[in-house]
Order: sequence, then C-alpha cells, then structure tokens
Amino acid sequence: MNFRAIFNIIGKVLCIVAVFMLPALIICFACGERSGGIALAVSMAIGVALGGPLTRLRPKRPDIFARDGLVTVGLAWIFVSLLGALPFLLSGAIPNYIDCVFETVSGFTTTGATIIGDVECLPRGILYWRSFTHWLGGMGVLVFLLILNPLADKNTGEGMHLLRAESPGIKASKLVPRMKESAGILYKIYIALTVLEFVLLILGRMPVFDAVCLSFGTAGTGGFGVLNDSVASYGPYCQWVITVFMLLFGVNFYVYFLLLIRKFKKALRNEEVITFLVIVGISIAVISVNIFRLYSGLEETVRTAAFQVASIISTTGFSTADFDSWPQLSRTILVALMFCGACAGSTGGGAKVVRMIISFKAARRSIYKTMHPNSVRIIHVDGERIDDETVSAVGAYMLVYFIITAAAVLLVSLDGKSFETNFTAVAACLNNIGPGLGGVGPMENYSTFSWLSKVILTLSMLIGRLEVYPILLLFTPTAWRKIQR
Amino acid sequence: MNFRAIFNIIGKVLCIVAVFMLPALIICFACGERSGGIALAVSMAIGVALGGPLTRLRPKRPDIFARDGLVTVGLAWIFVSLLGALPFLLSGAIPNYIDCVFETVSGFTTTGATIIGDVECLPRGILYWRSFTHWLGGMGVLVFLLILNPLADKNTGEGMHLLRAESPGIKASKLVPRMKESAGILYKIYIALTVLEFVLLILGRMPVFDAVCLSFGTAGTGGFGVLNDSVASYGPYCQWVITVFMLLFGVNFYVYFLLLIRKFKKALRNEEVITFLVIVGISIAVISVNIFRLYSGLEETVRTAAFQVASIISTTGFSTADFDSWPQLSRTILVALMFCGACAGSTGGGAKVVRMIISFKAARRSIYKTMHPNSVRIIHVDGERIDDETVSAVGAYMLVYFIITAAAVLLVSLDGKSFETNFTAVAACLNNIGPGLGGVGPMENYSTFSWLSKVILTLSMLIGRLEVYPILLLFTPTAWRKIQR
Repeated sequence: MNFRAIFNIIGKVLCIVAVFMLPALIICFACGERSGGIALAVSMAIGVALGGPLTRLRPKRPDIFARDGLVTVGLAWIFVSLLGALPFLLSGAIPNYIDCVFETVSGFTTTGATIIGDVECLPRGILYWRSFTHWLGGMGVLVFLLILNPLADKNTGEGMHLLRAESPGIKASKLVPRMKESAGILYKIYIALTVLEFVLLILGRMPVFDAVCLSFGTAGTGGFGVLNDSVASYGPYCQWVITVFMLLFGVNFYVYFLLLIRKFKKALRNEEVITFLVIVGISIAVISVNIFRLYSGLEETVRTAAFQVASIISTTGFSTADFDSWPQLSRTILVALMFCGACAGSTGGGAKVVRMIISFKAARRSIYKTMHPNSVRIIHVDGERIDDETVSAVGAYMLVYFIITAAAVLLVSLDGKSFETNFTAVAACLNNIGPGLGGVGPMENYSTFSWLSKVILTLSMLIGRLEVYPILLLFTPTAWRKIQR
Repeated sequence: MNFRAIFNIIGKVLCIVAVFMLPALIICFACGERSGGIALAVSMAIGVALGGPLTRLRPKRPDIFARDGLVTVGLAWIFVSLLGALPFLLSGAIPNYIDCVFETVSGFTTTGATIIGDVECLPRGILYWRSFTHWLGGMGVLVFLLILNPLADKNTGEGMHLLRAESPGIKASKLVPRMKESAGILYKIYIALTVLEFVLLILGRMPVFDAVCLSFGTAGTGGFGVLNDSVASYGPYCQWVITVFMLLFGVNFYVYFLLLIRKFKKALRNEEVITFLVIVGISIAVISVNIFRLYSGLEETVRTAAFQVASIISTTGFSTADFDSWPQLSRTILVALMFCGACAGSTGGGAKVVRMIISFKAARRSIYKTMHPNSVRIIHVDGERIDDETVSAVGAYMLVYFIITAAAVLLVSLDGKSFETNFTAVAACLNNIGPGLGGVGPMENYSTFSWLSKVILTLSMLIGRLEVYPILLLFTPTAWRKIQR
C-alpha cells in the first residue's frame, strides 16, 4: 500500500474542507453568532493543523493502484466527516459526537437524514455549513481536488482510480481524454445548474439564505432543509422549481455534456435517462390517483405526488407532505423507488437506474437461457454491447447490496423498533435518501436510535455514497496485505 | 412446442393425483363424512375423465426440449392444483374457488399458508387430503411419474428435463446414471424418513390421524396442521421430534444417498449442510437469549426457539409460539431465514443455502476484484469448481427473485395492509413457508386478502416451489413461439 501517497491526498482534502468552512464563518460573524463562529474557526484551525503536515509527505513511488485509490477514497471520506462534524460539536448545536458524525456523514453523503428535531434554532452559519456539506459531497471532494492538482494529468493512474472510486455508476465517465478537464467540466455544469436554481428560487421570492441552502441541498441531492417542515411552507412555484431541479440533478451529467457539445440526438436517446423519466412519470400518475382524495384539486395532488417522487427517486429527501400517512400502495412505491435511485453519473444515490436496466436485461436473458440452454445472447445498453464481466459485476454488486441491507436491518432491529422503521431506515440511509417510513418518516428524525444503530446507519450512508467497495475494503484484511508478485 | 407430449404427461399426472385421493375417500367413509366422501369421489371421477383421454395422445416426435420440460412442469402444477382444489369446493369446506385453489397450491407447493381460520371443524378426509398434498408436492408429482413410466430410461431427455424443472437446486442431482433409479432412491429415502417420524410421534402418544398428517406436513416441509394452534398443544417430546425431522427434511437428500452407499466422509463434509446447520445453531442461540424472559426455564426457551427456527429455515411453517409477538431482533432473524431457505435437493423452499454460499463467495470475489482488476479467481463449493456460467446463473436467479418480491409486494399493497404484513406475506408465500409477521402471523390467516392478492400470492407460491422459470415462462411470449432453426 502506498501510504505516503494516500495520506498526502487525505492531507490536501482536509485542507480544502477547512478552507470551505470560511463562508460559514463569515455568515456567523455577520449574524453575530459567537459560538458558531468560534466553533468554525477552531475546526478550520484543526483541519489545517492536521492536514497541512500530511501534504508534506512525499510518496516514494508515484504509482497508485486500484486498491490504493479505493482505500484513499474510503479513508478520506471518514477523515473529512470527522473534521466536518467538529463545528456541530464545538458550537453546542449537537451535544454528542456520534450524533455530530451521523449528521455530517449524512451531509457529505447527500443523505439528508437528521438527528435534529428543531433545525430552526441552529445558528445560521452552522445551518449553512450543514447544507454546504451536501453540495461538496454531491460531486465529490476528491474530484474537486483533481481540478486543483497540477499533477493530475501527468499522473493519470492516480486521477482515474480516485475518480472511479468516488463517482457513482458502473464506470467513471471520462468525458474528455484529459482527466483534469473532465472533472472541471463536471464541476462547471454542477455550478451552473446550482446557480440557475438559486436564481429561479429568488424569483419566487424565497429568502436568499433559504434559496442558497436549498439549492445546495437539491444540487447534491441531499435533503437538509432550513425549516422544520422541510419544503412544505414554500409556495407552489418554489416547490415546482425544486421538483424539476431534483430530477435534473438525478440525470446522468454525461447527457448535459452531450448537450453542450451539441450531440442532441445522442443525448435525447439515452436509455438510462428515458427509463428514469418513464419510472418517474408512471410513479407520479399512480400515486396521484391513489392520493387524490387526500388533497384539494388536481394541481395540488400532482404537485405533491411529483415532489415526493422526484425527491425519493433522486434520493434527495425533501418533503412537502407526510407521505408516511399515505395509502399503502403509494408508500410501497416510494420504498421501491428508494432502491432504484437516480442515474449513474449524477449526484443521486440508490442502486442507479442503469444497474436496474442491466439487471432486468440479465433476468430476461436468464429466462431465455433456461429455454435454450446453449444460446448466447448479448446485452445492449444505448446500443453498446455490455460485456459479460460488467453484467456479472452488476449482479455481484446487487448481491452485496442486498446482503448489506439484510445485515444492517438485523443489527438495527436490536433497538426493538418496528420492522417497517428498521427496514426503511436502512433503505433511506444506504440509498442516501434521508426520510423513510414509520419511525423515520418525513415528520420524524433519527435521534431515537441507539449509538450502535447510528454507527451502523452512518456506515450504511458511506457505503451507499461510495458504492460499497471503498468502505467494505477498509474492513477486509486482505486489502491491507502486501501484494505478492 | 411438443404439445402432444406435454399433454400426455399432464394427463398421466391428473390420473395419479385422482388415484391418490382414494385414501382420503376411504377415511371419509370410515368416519361417516358424507359430503367429504361425495366431493372426493366426484373429484376423482373428474380427474380421470379429464386425464384419461389426454394419456391417449401419442407424441409425433419423441424428443422434448428444455423449454417443453419447463412448460410441462408449469402447466402440470397448475392443472393438478385446479383438480386438487375440487374436494374443498365440492365438500363445502371452502365456499370460494379462488380460496380453494389458494389452499391447494399452498398444499402442493408445501407452503402451508391457509385461508381457513378453524381447521378443526373440517371433515377428516378433507383434512387428510389437505396434508397429503404437502407430501405429494414435497418430492414432486412428476418425479413420481418418472418411477412409474416404463419408458423413462429410454427417453432420458424427457426425464432429465422434467426432473431438472421440478427439483429445487442449482442442478438436478442425478444420483445414479439411470434417471428412473435416481427418482426411486429419492422416494425411498423420503418414505423411510416419513415412516420413521410417524413411528416416533406414535411413541409420543400422538393420535394416529394427527401423526400421519403431521408427518406428511413435516416431510414435505409444508406446514398444514390439524389443530387450530398448529403444534403448540402437543407435548415437548413430540415438538422435539418434529423439530429434528423438519431439519432432516431440509437437508440435501444427496447426503442421505452418500450415507446409504457408506461414503460417510463425503457426506459429513458437505459444505451446504454444514452451513445450514451453522445458521440454524447461531439463530437458535441468538433467539434463545433474546426471548429468554418470555418463557419459563431453559428447556422451554431453547425448544421454542429451535422449533421456530427449524420451521422457518426448512420453510415448513409449523409453530408452537406466536413468534409475531417476539422482540424485533428475533422477528427480523426469522424474516432473514425465510429468504435463506433450506438446502438444495431437499423438500424445502426459499432461495436455498447453496445459492447463499455462492452469492457470498461471488460477493467476496467482487470485492477482491475491485482491488485487483485483472485477477482471476475461481469459486469452489465442496472442493468442486463452480464455473462462471453457474455463478452468473445464480446471480440472475437472485435478481429475478428480488424483482418478483418487489413486484408482488407492490401489487399486494393495493389492499392497504401494513408494509410488514405485505412484505412478509410475499416472503412467506414465495419461499413456501406459510406464516409471516403482522397480519399473516402464526395466529392469523390469509382469508382477509382481496382476490387479486390471493392470485398474486398463489402465483408466488408456484414460482417459489418451481424455482421461478417454469411459471415465468408461461407468461413469456417467446416461450410459445416456434423455435427457428
């Protein structure tokens, strides 16, 4: 293991995160929030004090293998979360460090599950930091590092392994041959869409602070709000804007890249995005019919259904209604959408639509194969041939996913909560959504779980955001062994 | 499609089932149960009248392909269930034909889910028939046909395809080179174990009728009892006997064959059986600790835990306690065991332990593969190499299994019952267990579901028993198309 290279990168990431606390610090001073300001200043100092010396580590070998890339990403996210949790602890916003880490991991992984019942009494600077973690975690802080790193392109191995380990999807989409440029393009699209949403929300007369925080939350498909009722008290216009942007951030960013380079045909025929929108459309239609009698009028019904569907499938987790009290069919559809998730290459979580497509096609092929045992059938997505290795990788991924779900539900059930609560809490954390059903419904929070369950759910969030392997690897003894040649 | 061959076999199967109604008819006359007797006699007549002419169909071509084998098994099970449901309808035991079919499919698939609240008021002949469907369905009525069929060995293709489609597991275990002999050996072991259990129960002073029915229920890993409280009112000795036999019938019969031919070492080192027993042991231990305060004394606690664990993992579904009222951890363990299921090559249902083993090994390999992308690792079970095709077949099977689970839960949720009830009802039917949690707990029954849900759950039972493909194929348009050469 190339530990010097790994900790060099972790050092840089800690410094970046510390620097990113600055706007929150400024807000604290502007609003005269003393405790928040001191907490942020101390956290920044700790971040730089720890991270600075690490960046001085010079790797003896420049090469970094797939394994090192995965371990780097896994460890970096854990260290960043431990640092990011400090402002909550030091400002007294959350008294317990395990809760602070839960909240911060929930932020960085864009889950949006909270242990805070009353968010409105938090200092504004802290609230800003809480929402900003979504924005930073959505695209990935290591991807950001790639843009800054002057060596990134000379050292493609390193960049590629990091990008691959941190980006959701079945393969890291290298948009252009130069890694650094790819990361830059992704971040530019990300910033442009965030700003656009902010402007549209401002036009809807949303307060500037709320608009900033909610734009961060939407962009990262996070779900932390600044009001106790999430998004319910903003007007219909703002709710529609957020609905549309939740879906936009759930779309594969590769499609935006295609639009930018004017390959409209290819962009509009993207199988994953079409499937994503079809699932969204059908879900909205069925739920609208199912909940029609609960709301007054067609617009409110469709808006409420669309908001909740967009929020869950994009794994954002905002809510404008207590969907826990909806009829069973609608609730079950939402649980199914939790596992489906957004598109690969977006900021959303879940198993990803493309994996669903490949799974369905593999399932169909296996039915065909029982009929014609000697047949050979190729699976295609977007007209491209998916090789058998990718298909079995997807199969293995789904298996690991279900094994982790089962194990986490078992451990969380030690708390004695209902099956529905445990199952949807794990589903909501593993798929980076936030609210579930029952005891973790949109009007509830995660504060009543035991510390063990909180640790399990925190790990689930990291496992979900980093797509299983970077975190699992940290617990695999063979990952730490020397490679034999 | 070789329809003549398919319907020839279905005709034979219908006749066999009609003949097997004879003991129930005799019991009815012995007990003076007029309505039951007439119902059984009429059903037998209908079975022979429909099946007899079909056996006259002479296939034009002797060959039968994998597809034909699957379709035969799928159709045969549906026809047999429709016939087997008649005694319930005609005797007035169950007034509604959909309910009758539900109960019969539940019997033949060895599920044991019932829509009857009070079984004690049923005629004894009908009760006998209900339990006997478990015994017949456990080993497979088509496997039975193979023993009778004088042509079976000349026509190995037919036999193999039928055996493969009806026997649970990743490959039909051909014990000896001659198909007919294999089927014979399996049935001999099956009968011997059933008789042994019957004798042991009689020694425990259980009434003869109860002992016969419960032996059938245990042997097929079914779960229909003859008392309203299942097995709770029999003494500790009988409960222990049933516990042990539930586990014995959940073991791969191949192991008994190895014992018979004195290959003790190979039998005792069977990886699947060892894993099965380890899972059972750990589950009993954890549940015993978890429920200790609910029962008086160690023996009762361990007995209750062991009975329920053996009942669920072997997918039998008897109960001696209302495990729905147990602490959440124990309930969740039972749900996990539902999906695990028994060993392949046993009469039990579920996903089968061997698939779990291969899934875990495939998951472990995929973790290794992310670290070392160019590595090649072979998966072994029992020291034998599992080829990649089998591994991806297992992966595809698990995917189809989860897709079916999700779809069935969605459809059943139209009834508006709780998530726990819907989820465990589907789990209990798909895995051929019987009771679930909540509204389908061991003290409840399935009568409150709508007809749509009952149809969905009936199909789930068939899909589970026949391991997905024979039933799915019936709904696949390409299965009915002519094969192009």
